[in-house]
Amino acid sequence: MHYRLIVEYDGTDFHGWQLQPGARTVQGELEAAVARLFGAPARINAAGRTDAGVHAVGQVVSVRVERPLPPEVVCRALNAHTADDLSVRAVDVVDNAFDPRRHACSRRYEYRIWNRRAPSPFWRRYTWHVPQPLDVEAMAHAAGPLIGEHDFSSFQAAGCDAAHAVRRVLHSAVAADGGLLRYEIEATAFLRHMVRNIVGTLVEVGLGRRPADLMPLLAARDRTQAAATAPASGLCLVEVRY
Amino acid sequence: MHYRLIVEYDGTDFHGWQLQPGARTVQGELEAAVARLFGAPARINAAGRTDAGVHAVGQVVSVRVERPLPPEVVCRALNAHTADDLSVRAVDVVDNAFDPRRHACSRRYEYRIWNRRAPSPFWRRYTWHVPQPLDVEAMAHAAGPLIGEHDFSSFQAAGCDAAHAVRRVLHSAVAADGGLLRYEIEATAFLRHMVRNIVGTLVEVGLGRRPADLMPLLAARDRTQAAATAPASGLCLVEVRY
Repeated sequence: MHYRLIVEYDGTDFHGWQLQPGARTVQGELEAAVARLFGAPARINAAGRTDAGVHAVGQVVSVRVERPLPPEVVCRALNAHTADDLSVRAVDVVDNAFDPRRHACSRRYEYRIWNRRAPSPFWRRYTWHVPQPLDVEAMAHAAGPLIGEHDFSSFQAAGCDAAHAVRRVLHSAVAADGGLLRYEIEATAFLRHMVRNIVGTLVEVGLGRRPADLMPLLAARDRTQAAATAPASGLCLVEVRY
Repeated sequence: MHYRLIVEYDGTDFHGWQLQPGARTVQGELEAAVARLFGAPARINAAGRTDAGVHAVGQVVSVRVERPLPPEVVCRALNAHTADDLSVRAVDVVDNAFDPRRHACSRRYEYRIWNRRAPSPFWRRYTWHVPQPLDVEAMAHAAGPLIGEHDFSSFQAAGCDAAHAVRRVLHSAVAADGGLLRYEIEATAFLRHMVRNIVGTLVEVGLGRRPADLMPLLAARDRTQAAATAPASGLCLVEVRY
């Protein structure tokens, strides 16, 4: 039986998605729950391997097991077998060939910034706290033109082993909602740290430290010209489309 | 100098507002921060003494100190001296006679219910998880007529020492927002556990276990006829008006 799971997690207390000996990871926690439920080990594949501290509300994963169980039973049982910072939102049965990573058409991430002087006890785990006032309009002007196909080398993590850095961005927008500032980006695929490097740079725009026109920076294809990587706590994988 | 502070806290890891020897409380944490900043102990008074596990985004407190400091300095310094589940949003100087509890005209609370089958990693600290489907319309019908002046004995905590149980409710409404269900209530004052007892009863209405007309229950003035107290985790003191 081949199941697709939609998984949600608070990444704060996980060392990221990927299995690591001696560290608590989302993959490790899910594989342990699956092994307990089905009585046999199974490998879980995810649409996106989120980094340490990154959250997800719509991570998509798949797992193949021998014993067939109704999807509702799998969903309920996995939720009973996992800690409360990890939740299985939905389970369905998929074609044997389904590959959550390779078959995904696009991924949507949201990055949240808490932009009030005082820190927020409620948002501290799910945002980056930037206490200085941000020019949201300038940030929105900077974010929009990232839509389209570009070489994102300037926003790629050092040591990222992608074959090339051209990615197609489908949506890129900044919006303020009270003290909360949300940057939403959807792309067919992402480079390592790409969203967090873009956000670090957008915040420098919002602080008036660099111009809103990021096209020269993209054209430079030089990581050292972009800003420092924004913290993982603000990032959330919202949806994977197929 | 008499300061008014607007205070926000994630109540999960506090044993409520009120000072208790050997327990971490919001009042204890704030008084310790004030003592460190001003070099002398000071008593802090609050508009509402929230119970263990209850949150606040708009708690109002006041404190009298000898040494005058600019309000912005007090705000920044107190935030530096408190843990990150407690935050001082604003500080101003008030008249010497100001009493945050006695001068309050009304308090507004919000109670949040997570009403999806699967638990939410993000809302787990700030909601009551009710996995069964709730009839929001029936709950809204039940909530509305609580507006007005009523004897709320049926929703008063056993052992509550209030002189009488008549309270004036200014607003009482249920609204659904995705998987989140919000009950908002504003009243001139509240009885102990009043909001959580109302919510416990509204949820029974939403589950179809009791009729939406709560007037007979109010008229009975009998705590044993209402539902069990809803968990503290869903409750938040949103605003105090003067």
